[in-house]
Amino acid sequence: MKADTVTDAPHTGVVSTEIERKFLVSAPPGDDVLGAGVHYRQGYLAGEGDVEARLRIGPAEAWITVKAGRGVARTEVEVAIPVAEAEALWPHTAGRRLEKDRFLVAVDGGTAEVDRYADELAGLWTVEVEFGSTDAAAAFRPPSWFGPELTDVDGWSNAALARHGRPVDPPG
Amino acid sequence: MKADTVTDAPHTGVVSTEIERKFLVSAPPGDDVLGAGVHYRQGYLAGEGDVEARLRIGPAEAWITVKAGRGVARTEVEVAIPVAEAEALWPHTAGRRLEKDRFLVAVDGGTAEVDRYADELAGLWTVEVEFGSTDAAAAFRPPSWFGPELTDVDGWSNAALARHGRPVDPPG
Repeated sequence: MKADTVTDAPHTGVVSTEIERKFLVSAPPGDDVLGAGVHYRQGYLAGEGDVEARLRIGPAEAWITVKAGRGVARTEVEVAIPVAEAEALWPHTAGRRLEKDRFLVAVDGGTAEVDRYADELAGLWTVEVEFGSTDAAAAFRPPSWFGPELTDVDGWSNAALARHGRPVDPPG
Repeated sequence: MKADTVTDAPHTGVVSTEIERKFLVSAPPGDDVLGAGVHYRQGYLAGEGDVEARLRIGPAEAWITVKAGRGVARTEVEVAIPVAEAEALWPHTAGRRLEKDRFLVAVDGGTAEVDRYADELAGLWTVEVEFGSTDAAAAFRPPSWFGPELTDVDGWSNAALARHGRPVDPPG
């Protein structure tokens, strides 16, 4: 997610190679560490091949994000769109949705994006950390409150969680 | 397509209900009527359910367009993105592409968008007319150079042509 960049330039597309690792959260930090979260609705407009087109709606902003490719480094293009336009598309994501609160938590190596899921996914917490290079990603030492790694584990992407719910089997 | 609107506000999303009819071209107009065309590459990022996410790259501009819903009136959100970002996504549309030249021709009731396809679709011409209301769409009398109607005919959408090529069977 490049929400900070988009906030700086709300109508300019952002292209990036996204290098990130994702983990379960085994012991969610307390509210004092989490701080204030932001509520997001995410609906998957369409997925095909190695491409996903996602709609994300926040309290005052919305985005269309296209992620393409597989593995730790993917191409991502994100464009802000008016919330009214996002709401017009939202009905077309039925069956491919999730809601979550996102918290930003400082960790050694950068900022962790901690997600607390809602509705059918209530009880699930995940955390993602983005890196500037694949070397930095490989060198990352997860803090103790991180659980099993979900990077590239089938069924644990947000797109898969939105379509199929939480996998029955634990990761790894 | 809302290219004119997007040109006026290149980084602002456009939401609209698209009301249009599409036809084969049985007798392409001459160059004097067609005027100068604009070359577009279109790649389909992903299609799922009633949603298509399309990448369109023109000579100096590019767009991500999401079309949702079926029938004569669909929801469409189009956002301009820098060409460099579009080029980063383009490789991920392999097998779901077409190229065409688009010409704007005045017809009774508005402007016709005439498409002359290239590559595997060479020889195919189609024409689309957009309307302000479903009544206007129903009242439209196609000029003599229009051929059989393609609106809602399976296999003749641009998304289908890009994936499967020209249908063997004629429309209708």
